[in-house]
Amino acid sequence: MSEGKPSQPTLPINALDRSSQREFENWFAYPVRVQPHHTDYGGVVWHGSYIAWMEEARNECLRSIGINYGDLAAMGCDLPVVELSVRYHLPLQLGMAAVVKTRMADVTGVRINWDYAIASSDGEQLYVTAKATLVALDRERGNIMRQLPPSVKDALARVSTLHNN
Amino acid sequence: MSEGKPSQPTLPINALDRSSQREFENWFAYPVRVQPHHTDYGGVVWHGSYIAWMEEARNECLRSIGINYGDLAAMGCDLPVVELSVRYHLPLQLGMAAVVKTRMADVTGVRINWDYAIASSDGEQLYVTAKATLVALDRERGNIMRQLPPSVKDALARVSTLHNN
Amino acid sequence: MSEGKPSQPTLPINALDRSSQREFENWFAYPVRVQPHHTDYGGVVWHGSYIAWMEEARNECLRSIGINYGDLAAMGCDLPVVELSVRYHLPLQLGMAAVVKTRMADVTGVRINWDYAIASSDGEQLYVTAKATLVALDRERGNIMRQLPPSVKDALARVSTLHNN
Amino acid sequence: MSEGKPSQPTLPINALDRSSQREFENWFAYPVRVQPHHTDYGGVVWHGSYIAWMEEARNECLRSIGINYGDLAAMGCDLPVVELSVRYHLPLQLGMAAVVKTRMADVTGVRINWDYAIASSDGEQLYVTAKATLVALDRERGNIMRQLPPSVKDALARVSTLHNN
Repeated sequence: MSEGKPSQPTLPINALDRSSQREFENWFAYPVRVQPHHTDYGGVVWHGSYIAWMEEARNECLRSIGINYGDLAAMGCDLPVVELSVRYHLPLQLGMAAVVKTRMADVTGVRINWDYAIASSDGEQLYVTAKATLVALDRERGNIMRQLPPSVKDALARVSTLHNN
Repeated sequence: MSEGKPSQPTLPINALDRSSQREFENWFAYPVRVQPHHTDYGGVVWHGSYIAWMEEARNECLRSIGINYGDLAAMGCDLPVVELSVRYHLPLQLGMAAVVKTRMADVTGVRINWDYAIASSDGEQLYVTAKATLVALDRERGNIMRQLPPSVKDALARVSTLHNN
Repeated sequence: MSEGKPSQPTLPINALDRSSQREFENWFAYPVRVQPHHTDYGGVVWHGSYIAWMEEARNECLRSIGINYGDLAAMGCDLPVVELSVRYHLPLQLGMAAVVKTRMADVTGVRINWDYAIASSDGEQLYVTAKATLVALDRERGNIMRQLPPSVKDALARVSTLHNN
Repeated sequence: MSEGKPSQPTLPINALDRSSQREFENWFAYPVRVQPHHTDYGGVVWHGSYIAWMEEARNECLRSIGINYGDLAAMGCDLPVVELSVRYHLPLQLGMAAVVKTRMADVTGVRINWDYAIASSDGEQLYVTAKATLVALDRERGNIMRQLPPSVKDALARVSTLHNN
């Protein structure tokens, strides 16, 4: 993708309409900046780099409600991603700033579903939308926890209420 | 995820039945080995590392039919990923070997669809399945190519026939 | 490296004495947090991840004095790393916060030398020290710029004065 | 760095003379190919990507003499990098093939020293030279092993003899 020109397929939803902007308004916001190591030969963010940003946004969202991912891991509870889907709408170029918006969408059985939207700082451009499903894993036993640790469950309930209204 | 133990949720399809093994049989095979830099604190492959492996497998599949990704980029034709979905069935641990199986599934309009299955070398275990959609992009103009360069189109038709039968 | 325990060789200089702390005091500070994708199977930051952090710190230091790395690249001027040396004193673990301290040390001929110290937020622990040498590269011609663009030169002179006193 | 042109500073030693070629001849050879995820906006390999290649080469060298890095870690013995120095002579571009040559240079006290040279497949071009120092770490106790496990020690002695003559 050439520098200084629009350079990736302009899929229908890259320009945000008012309703979409409102949709993300209450989500947790994690600011990012495109560094050289995020880019590929095209001068834009390599498509796998967004996965790292989404992980960071999710963990910082959890931290903002009192869940420290490192503490969770030390307690033997892990939250691996078991499903991921990503749509790349518009590329981010070297040096650009953006915001990873995220929220915990819902919990269905053992599946904890998160939504992501990577947008420009002014909310006018949408670069990436994504969904990730996590499960809580008991590291010692190697199996899925049917019940989350109560402190985690309560915190997740709070974050869900916060971002989905 | 604890070392030396099975450590990620055993989703239904991690053990391959005979029919699935046959399904991947003719796909392009790209062998990989889990190195420390692929892993995370859980002792297993970090979920984003698979994205790099799938890209490598796709490009080596293209190379095997005479398409050099670097040459394509130098010609001004890019093949960015516009959509990606991944299911993580079973984790790969440090030092393990695996095979990334891939094929070009089909072309629908401007969308070039690829399938992936990351399996054990003996084909008995399935770790990851995924789909990626690419489009051909004219780097100069910054828009989608409605028609692929003829040499690329012919090569893709050949690889599709090869792996889908 | 086992979780929850000190886990890498305790080389002589991991505990900062007063004089070292003073040394880094005026350097540019870039805060980081250890995310899962930074770690490896040992539960600590993979040794290559620090390279990305140091690049980020250097570019944010440049941005703080008005040099945007993306603009520089768009102007055809690149600042590739031509030499790098890193000493790993103590490992950073999942979830930990730290600060990447950096400064432009000096310019010797075409070589632009940067220093790094990755330390705990309170300045008590030293994790990594490093040096990187960059050169200014004319992308069009593919050779080293003997003279930096005046705006860059002036900004670098300012940052050098700022952090070395 | 512009595509299709030489694009990084031509430092003195990028063209290998006969004596240097002979020097690397007996070292372990690990072939690599530049994939999009290795590159940055300059169209060349990002300087941190080489760290991953060197780790892979070192581990595959160990595997070739019967040391499986995963097994070693499972036994509680880790080999973290404590020092690293890299010189970037010439950049590798998207799609190019190269060979990471490596050898265990020597053991001085607890320090295990490795050498690296990343060169073109025909041995005519030298891209990167590097040195890494590792120590053996007892993961349980979190301290340096003064004595390597005998099987590892013997294997390392063999590899040293092999590549240094």
